[in-house]
Amino acid sequence: MGKGQELYKKAKKIIPGGTQLLSKRPEQFLPDNWPAYYQKAKGVEVWDLDGKKYIDMSIMGIGACILGYADPDVDKAVSKAIQLGSMSTLNCPEEVELAELMCELHPWADMVRYTRSGGECAAVAIRIARASSGKDKVAVCGYHGWHDWYLAANLGDTSKLDGQLLPGLQPKGVPRQLKGSVLTFNYNKEQFDKILLEHGKELGVIIMEPARGHDAPLEFLQYIRKKATELGIVLIFDEITSGFRMTCGGIHMLYGVNPDMAIFAKSISNGYPMGIILGKKSVMDAAQESFISSTYWTERIGPTAALATIKKYRKEKVDVYLINMGKKIKKIWQEQADKAGLKLHISGIDTLGHFEFDYPNNLAIRTLFTQMMLEKGFLAWFQFKVSYAHKDKHYKLYEKALGEVFPVLAKCQKEGTIEKMLKGPIQTTGFKRLVD
Amino acid sequence: MGKGQELYKKAKKIIPGGTQLLSKRPEQFLPDNWPAYYQKAKGVEVWDLDGKKYIDMSIMGIGACILGYADPDVDKAVSKAIQLGSMSTLNCPEEVELAELMCELHPWADMVRYTRSGGECAAVAIRIARASSGKDKVAVCGYHGWHDWYLAANLGDTSKLDGQLLPGLQPKGVPRQLKGSVLTFNYNKEQFDKILLEHGKELGVIIMEPARGHDAPLEFLQYIRKKATELGIVLIFDEITSGFRMTCGGIHMLYGVNPDMAIFAKSISNGYPMGIILGKKSVMDAAQESFISSTYWTERIGPTAALATIKKYRKEKVDVYLINMGKKIKKIWQEQADKAGLKLHISGIDTLGHFEFDYPNNLAIRTLFTQMMLEKGFLAWFQFKVSYAHKDKHYKLYEKALGEVFPVLAKCQKEGTIEKMLKGPIQTTGFKRLVD
Repeated sequence: MGKGQELYKKAKKIIPGGTQLLSKRPEQFLPDNWPAYYQKAKGVEVWDLDGKKYIDMSIMGIGACILGYADPDVDKAVSKAIQLGSMSTLNCPEEVELAELMCELHPWADMVRYTRSGGECAAVAIRIARASSGKDKVAVCGYHGWHDWYLAANLGDTSKLDGQLLPGLQPKGVPRQLKGSVLTFNYNKEQFDKILLEHGKELGVIIMEPARGHDAPLEFLQYIRKKATELGIVLIFDEITSGFRMTCGGIHMLYGVNPDMAIFAKSISNGYPMGIILGKKSVMDAAQESFISSTYWTERIGPTAALATIKKYRKEKVDVYLINMGKKIKKIWQEQADKAGLKLHISGIDTLGHFEFDYPNNLAIRTLFTQMMLEKGFLAWFQFKVSYAHKDKHYKLYEKALGEVFPVLAKCQKEGTIEKMLKGPIQTTGFKRLVD
Repeated sequence: MGKGQELYKKAKKIIPGGTQLLSKRPEQFLPDNWPAYYQKAKGVEVWDLDGKKYIDMSIMGIGACILGYADPDVDKAVSKAIQLGSMSTLNCPEEVELAELMCELHPWADMVRYTRSGGECAAVAIRIARASSGKDKVAVCGYHGWHDWYLAANLGDTSKLDGQLLPGLQPKGVPRQLKGSVLTFNYNKEQFDKILLEHGKELGVIIMEPARGHDAPLEFLQYIRKKATELGIVLIFDEITSGFRMTCGGIHMLYGVNPDMAIFAKSISNGYPMGIILGKKSVMDAAQESFISSTYWTERIGPTAALATIKKYRKEKVDVYLINMGKKIKKIWQEQADKAGLKLHISGIDTLGHFEFDYPNNLAIRTLFTQMMLEKGFLAWFQFKVSYAHKDKHYKLYEKALGEVFPVLAKCQKEGTIEKMLKGPIQTTGFKRLVD
């Protein structure tokens, strides 16, 4: 057992759930054998606690490190901010500059507030939107974090968030009084119309991911925009996952459908804690009617990192690079699968591609894939979140490794020996209590 | 008008409320004339956008920078973490080391979770406590942030949080369904007993600041502890303000009354975003039954800064230093006030002292005090949050300035010319919509 797994055994005893994020649980990747912790990360390379180096062809800090780990330009700006003092009794001017930049990138928007996490960002947006509309009920389409306002969707019926977040999630600890406050829908006009029919008058907020695996149908977005305007409902686009993935700003800029508010967190600050709530003045002004205030939202690193990340992104046309590299990885997956005779189902927007093995024992095959790739020096998973630090040389190494691993998977699958090859349990999915 | 005020005028147009924290609004200090923004902060010195240097004898980053601005030891650790990559697909080992340290400092505690802000820290603690007790109602005594669960106290009756947070706060945007979910009490047995009598069976959580201006009466804390245990209620101490102020850890360690959970944010990481939820295994384990997960809670700077801050605090016996210096400032205030013939009312725990001018026009005198001290090169307010970087040399300069300013205040007060001396409006208090 490596040092990382040893430390993780200890962590599970003193940190309930072992990690701070479900998606960083080692069990999701390779139970008992995932390196779990890192000592160093640079570009797309990660060193584990034993000093072993890997190329990260998986989730790149859950998509947060869009420029790559420890980007020299962002880190230079952050280091300067630290030298100059990252916190004081006075405010940091960077937050004003960032507000101007975000409004410039999104001409429909006038005002900005900040947090230091994505979940809290969504909670602030919902507070402002409810205060602005004067109506409490919220319609949601997508994943919007861990907070009470959102998980309340599962009060009474724990299947409501099945397609949005995780199947069968118990809203334990969410006050039961919130039952009925949140309504869920998918990219589906009938579902949405049903909510309007039943709750139209009390509906104050619609929050949705404008892309989720794939783009939302344009006519559907346009319809929602129209209805929200007609009924005085605040429309929020959650761009925490989709923002700065396909263009320099929210993905909605590509659709030409503007929300009243948009929220950003991942991808905007290359891994430094930061959340942005962007909106029209007519809605955002309601923030002044509510108490929304937190000490750490005033520190300097978040806005400094966001400014440096977005400026570099814009200058280097990172979106064009990411889309190109994202398409390329899908092509590599397909070619290598075809060569090996493996059935692969590839999906996801181009810069957030993922695949499933098209067999009933998909999860076992995925686990063996991660296990074999790890042995070859890759952090590899069924998801790949491309970054600006991924270069052709990394793709070539990855492609070569796939060329060796996929045929073994195909052979084992044919012989029924996938599980026998595994050195630990099959990777977990979704929400699960950790035992031990 | 200085550059800071110019920038603030712009900020108010694109950031609703102007700042991210009510307590950093320039209007709270010196409307139209507070420097508002900083370019550099080091030790206890702050440089504004015009390059003017001030000694901070006010709130030191709202108490967050307990070692002083840009502490070399903390910043060295943080810089190393940045060089090694502050985020990756794998977890950072520092979060496990910090968990061990916090449990070592608080022997009653077994487990830890993290956030990156104080408000979110309280929200996580409430979620876990509700999940653990299985009961939704919460009794609160103190200030616990901006989140829905807390502001719900003012639904129906906007006076409920008057003594705890701010007078007359409208809970705009907080879902009305939460009405009745939160009950408020002060350090007062009758008020607390009334809550138990009326809501005892549904009461799942008690959250309180164990010190608020002054220590809670010991027998009162012991009584609450006893009742919480008897009735299966989770007791949370909010140590965000009081933690690491009077001892290396929660102030409750001095009382010998242990909660089931405690939360920390300010003071633990010297201004870098960080929140800690600490608790007994029996309660914290409920975190595993609920979805509490956020990407930025996994970054490396927060736990690195907390480890460096707490280790230095412990090694240098910072608590002893702060208490000594805190007592000293109270003495200086009293002596200078006596000398000038000014009536001063001094209060606050020793390391978080504050004063009021004992006159009906206190607020106007406070404003003139801040105005005159600013002209002498001090950020000065009625509150002073001492840090480890405050040395006798700063005190001497401050004392000398008080020796010049207090007599003027006394004279103007006698002559009724305080307001005439002001170069701008009187400082604001509490929650107020900004008009500009």
